[in-house]
Amino acid sequence: MSEPNISAVLLEKGNLKMEERPIPKPGKNEVQIAIHSVGICGSDVHFWTDGSIGPFLVKSPMVLGHEASGTVCQLGEGVTHLNIGDRVAIEPGIPCRQCAACKGGKYNLCPHVKFCATPPVDGSLCRYYVHPADLCFKLPDNVSYEEGALLEPLSVAVHACRRSGVTIGSNVLVCGAGPIGLVCLLAAKAMGAAKVVTTDIDAKRLECARQMGADVTVDVTSRDGRAVADQVVQELGCQPDVTIECSGAEPSIHAGIYATQPGGVLMIVGCGRQMATIPLLDAALKEVDIRGNLRYCNDYPTALAMVASGQVNVKPLVTHRYSLEQTLEAFEFAKKGEGIKVMIHCDKTKA
Amino acid sequence: MSEPNISAVLLEKGNLKMEERPIPKPGKNEVQIAIHSVGICGSDVHFWTDGSIGPFLVKSPMVLGHEASGTVCQLGEGVTHLNIGDRVAIEPGIPCRQCAACKGGKYNLCPHVKFCATPPVDGSLCRYYVHPADLCFKLPDNVSYEEGALLEPLSVAVHACRRSGVTIGSNVLVCGAGPIGLVCLLAAKAMGAAKVVTTDIDAKRLECARQMGADVTVDVTSRDGRAVADQVVQELGCQPDVTIECSGAEPSIHAGIYATQPGGVLMIVGCGRQMATIPLLDAALKEVDIRGNLRYCNDYPTALAMVASGQVNVKPLVTHRYSLEQTLEAFEFAKKGEGIKVMIHCDKTKA
Amino acid sequence: MSEPNISAVLLEKGNLKMEERPIPKPGKNEVQIAIHSVGICGSDVHFWTDGSIGPFLVKSPMVLGHEASGTVCQLGEGVTHLNIGDRVAIEPGIPCRQCAACKGGKYNLCPHVKFCATPPVDGSLCRYYVHPADLCFKLPDNVSYEEGALLEPLSVAVHACRRSGVTIGSNVLVCGAGPIGLVCLLAAKAMGAAKVVTTDIDAKRLECARQMGADVTVDVTSRDGRAVADQVVQELGCQPDVTIECSGAEPSIHAGIYATQPGGVLMIVGCGRQMATIPLLDAALKEVDIRGNLRYCNDYPTALAMVASGQVNVKPLVTHRYSLEQTLEAFEFAKKGEGIKVMIHCDKTKA
Amino acid sequence: MSEPNISAVLLEKGNLKMEERPIPKPGKNEVQIAIHSVGICGSDVHFWTDGSIGPFLVKSPMVLGHEASGTVCQLGEGVTHLNIGDRVAIEPGIPCRQCAACKGGKYNLCPHVKFCATPPVDGSLCRYYVHPADLCFKLPDNVSYEEGALLEPLSVAVHACRRSGVTIGSNVLVCGAGPIGLVCLLAAKAMGAAKVVTTDIDAKRLECARQMGADVTVDVTSRDGRAVADQVVQELGCQPDVTIECSGAEPSIHAGIYATQPGGVLMIVGCGRQMATIPLLDAALKEVDIRGNLRYCNDYPTALAMVASGQVNVKPLVTHRYSLEQTLEAFEFAKKGEGIKVMIHCDKTKA
Repeated sequence: MSEPNISAVLLEKGNLKMEERPIPKPGKNEVQIAIHSVGICGSDVHFWTDGSIGPFLVKSPMVLGHEASGTVCQLGEGVTHLNIGDRVAIEPGIPCRQCAACKGGKYNLCPHVKFCATPPVDGSLCRYYVHPADLCFKLPDNVSYEEGALLEPLSVAVHACRRSGVTIGSNVLVCGAGPIGLVCLLAAKAMGAAKVVTTDIDAKRLECARQMGADVTVDVTSRDGRAVADQVVQELGCQPDVTIECSGAEPSIHAGIYATQPGGVLMIVGCGRQMATIPLLDAALKEVDIRGNLRYCNDYPTALAMVASGQVNVKPLVTHRYSLEQTLEAFEFAKKGEGIKVMIHCDKTKA
Repeated sequence: MSEPNISAVLLEKGNLKMEERPIPKPGKNEVQIAIHSVGICGSDVHFWTDGSIGPFLVKSPMVLGHEASGTVCQLGEGVTHLNIGDRVAIEPGIPCRQCAACKGGKYNLCPHVKFCATPPVDGSLCRYYVHPADLCFKLPDNVSYEEGALLEPLSVAVHACRRSGVTIGSNVLVCGAGPIGLVCLLAAKAMGAAKVVTTDIDAKRLECARQMGADVTVDVTSRDGRAVADQVVQELGCQPDVTIECSGAEPSIHAGIYATQPGGVLMIVGCGRQMATIPLLDAALKEVDIRGNLRYCNDYPTALAMVASGQVNVKPLVTHRYSLEQTLEAFEFAKKGEGIKVMIHCDKTKA
Repeated sequence: MSEPNISAVLLEKGNLKMEERPIPKPGKNEVQIAIHSVGICGSDVHFWTDGSIGPFLVKSPMVLGHEASGTVCQLGEGVTHLNIGDRVAIEPGIPCRQCAACKGGKYNLCPHVKFCATPPVDGSLCRYYVHPADLCFKLPDNVSYEEGALLEPLSVAVHACRRSGVTIGSNVLVCGAGPIGLVCLLAAKAMGAAKVVTTDIDAKRLECARQMGADVTVDVTSRDGRAVADQVVQELGCQPDVTIECSGAEPSIHAGIYATQPGGVLMIVGCGRQMATIPLLDAALKEVDIRGNLRYCNDYPTALAMVASGQVNVKPLVTHRYSLEQTLEAFEFAKKGEGIKVMIHCDKTKA
Repeated sequence: MSEPNISAVLLEKGNLKMEERPIPKPGKNEVQIAIHSVGICGSDVHFWTDGSIGPFLVKSPMVLGHEASGTVCQLGEGVTHLNIGDRVAIEPGIPCRQCAACKGGKYNLCPHVKFCATPPVDGSLCRYYVHPADLCFKLPDNVSYEEGALLEPLSVAVHACRRSGVTIGSNVLVCGAGPIGLVCLLAAKAMGAAKVVTTDIDAKRLECARQMGADVTVDVTSRDGRAVADQVVQELGCQPDVTIECSGAEPSIHAGIYATQPGGVLMIVGCGRQMATIPLLDAALKEVDIRGNLRYCNDYPTALAMVASGQVNVKPLVTHRYSLEQTLEAFEFAKKGEGIKVMIHCDKTKA
């Protein structure tokens, strides 16, 4: 006997409401999942408060949530690698599988992708949800539902570290110690970075970065990128090979360009303003590549392997927990920007 | 019996003078070269008119010229792969060979590099010049001295096309149809580009691009990057995989970001202003990498192979010729920005 | 009014028969194609004469043919990028689109792939055939049906040249001047190879290679790999950067290892015996990578661009032509190993 | 006042003798080093017992040893990054710095390299030794001389893991648990491998591998590569992405080919016989690249960073220690193949 499918529906900008929705049935190659844990992402809050992100407008009611895990409760036709009762993490973007990007192994760039809680596609902050089986990753016993939900931000970090070429012996600068900065720190260390230096303007966040493994932290007080770069190089003892910019702040991008080793990489993960004024010529003349990051692509299995093998510990990221019924309260809290990751538990039957 | 070593010496900003200098002797692993042809580069003119480029200041007299070819006339100790009388092209940067960049195969990023006619290092616009033998590339009979000198800009293009991943089937946008834009066009076609579209604001230059192989040209009249991008995509029939920006103009950089295929590359070859305002977020969210280009590295042998095999024809680039004695006249002409490449002939004894 | 769907059915080893089969209907995202041209591949002949290739056994009747082009004559649901009447080339492998290989951009390694005329999957040597629309590539007016069919072997060559890193200035050794060796030669030249040397034991084939662009040819008379390597290096003037082995002969693999430049690549395209005795230590100690090639992956669009732009001319490959009704005769001829490519025309209504 | 320069000289096959040699003076860009620790490598023993390895013959007396560390005691002209008293690890190969391999960042493939204790070049098993300063890496206080000497085999492992693409989440098979197999295990784990399985025929070595971090070990009893591959896959729970073959045994190479994931890499590190009979077609048809490994290249700094940061612990590798005067005894012991790494201490003045 199923519970009613309570869902967190964003009716319009500023208007989030818990509604009962029909329980969806899995089609071919799909599974039905009883959602357990859903992390609140900055984008969820942003759609709620602003009604849009860039070109994406909330024009009709949409279920929020895309950092989710749960339990397989029904199998669609053709599903063979999952069984009812399997605990899974859900990779939230469904690519078309037919375009050049998909066939070329860059499905995150698929122009037809359907991504949870990016308008007009419904997300997974609800009790029952249906998803393609191949985008559901079975969690081994030693990986919790919350860790499963955290594979989403961790996959962003894996993608960023891979694209920026972090490897054994790399010296890495991570700008920003919010949730994404912290998972990038974790991923960089797991990929063999010799030293990671983290910057932020918030001392509490830097303390958190140190606890999660940052070798050095720099408390940023200046808006002068060169000054910050000098400080970073001095603290690190050398220029970083890779800078992963997670703050979106322009002075931080400047610092990344000035600090990074010639021939290195500046990875843009944080979303700043549409137009940025940057020392592009400096970057070009020292062949520091500026690369961006759209979500992730073939990174969930790696993120899962990292957690399952104990290479990274993401548990400290979850600082606050709410039930599905308390979703509005959870969003109000998340809006304040306190804590790191707010997690919503949707399944009453499981720990 | 040698000629006197007439040299084009930039005494200070604005003051270029032909002077006789001592004939240098080759040291270990070096050769003495009777210079034949030297192309005038924009940077030569810039040092003359402005006395500096970025951080490089002309503080003491310096011989100009770095696009050179000539004849080996004396061998230093240990030189085995060259003989007296060999016609050679000269790669003008001498790396330290010991730093991490040099040992890592990126000697163009060597912080200790000595580069011809970048202060305070003397260039090769003179009659006799000494250079490390391994940076002199023997020209086969079917490659002329002028073509040898043109290997310098062609190597820039090879480096840019390699770093931007131009390959068989690529659709390429080249912004700017000056000398560097034109050699990038040639290199892209030789590397298998399916279609190259060239943009410029000068119809005569575009005509030249068409003659040198551009499949499509776009006469840029708008300063709105999006509009130019739309025009490029329409004319090309698709988004370019790679954009090679050779103009240094900000609207052109914008056009490159907007036009390039998600997952593609924007190569920054043209030198614009130190700070640029660009739609960085657009680039990041479609994972268009922004890469720069510093000179070349292991590209001379390839550039030579391309010319020797007939894959590219660089001859049409040379539009004006002067003798060494006419150097001042040649610089006055080059300053006007007419023609494409001005070539100075230093050797009276050879055609 | 449709023609009967005459199909070339291999009933069992040695027993090829023309049969009428039902005309298949296109499903979702599929198109129905009136087949025009089908090239006979060595594997088609092999299944006919031997009943198996490696692990693949003909256990039940199977339509042969996988190098095909034709005209779209019916659209399945959801097809938007093709129209009835479009002339298309057919990429013959249908991947599962869900496994790690598919999502990782290596769908040629998909363990669930359904490949035309690899048992038990029916091929395309018939009058009407149904295929996923995204694996059908629209031919521009200047590309003929025969050229469309030849995109199949050309894609093998593109894949091989890409995987082996052929690029501008490469010196390439192609071992074997059969159909695959010849398309590898064409692809290598189009990708910017400075020089291609082709080897074979058949002087007529070498003559063909020269006509198709080989810079040097070596008539192999010795079974001593070192001797052949020496001959290749002498004729080429240097060690090849890349060797593409298309003969499957062990001495030729040896020659490839001995000849290739340290740090280079030996590409295994030809299928030899299951076990090979090779100088592995020589390859390892000079870091010559030995890479294999399974079909192609994202290479059809490139192969098409190469033909459409005139970068390669594959027309001379077709030396013999038969009608669908003459299929048995065509196979008898192909079995003799004379000529290069035998083409079967299935459509009576089109040139 | 210096000690006499006692040196371990291999006079000819089988005849190793301690001799006093003149104390060498450092030339330009060189340093004189008081050697502290030198590890005995299999190749040292091999030259002693056999007088040759492959093409390298001991024709004249040669000092042995190439895994060395020591203290800088004199600076040649131009040395700026080292000071007298600095503790350093010595990278033992001196490349020509001028050939295409050197300038291309693959100096390990330099045909002119002078490598310690590869005939006719003297090694470093002595009291005073001179070496280019840029190939001496300063050890931080927390890295011991013995660890400095162990950077040599660790650099082999770093090179192998880099070239084979080991990265976060990789599943890796290491064949052989001798010194090189063990450092490959350490390097693979440090680079983020999710799981490493080690095989050997010796249970004691496998126990050692488990202690050094192997997730799974397989005691090889069969000479049937397929059977071993099956065992590996079963124990690992999946096919390895990368196999690093360190045993040189043919059945082990077979197991590597059969076990490795399609699209994966088989790295040949162990030196087997010159000719090997292998299932090459299997490798080719699943696109498993077979790559070799020659020493290392730009890997010392990384190996040092790994040890300095505590990412790897190489200390357990040293199982036996001797003084320089006991060198013959040390070689007699090493010949037996017991223990893992035998270390010789040359400096009486330092711990």
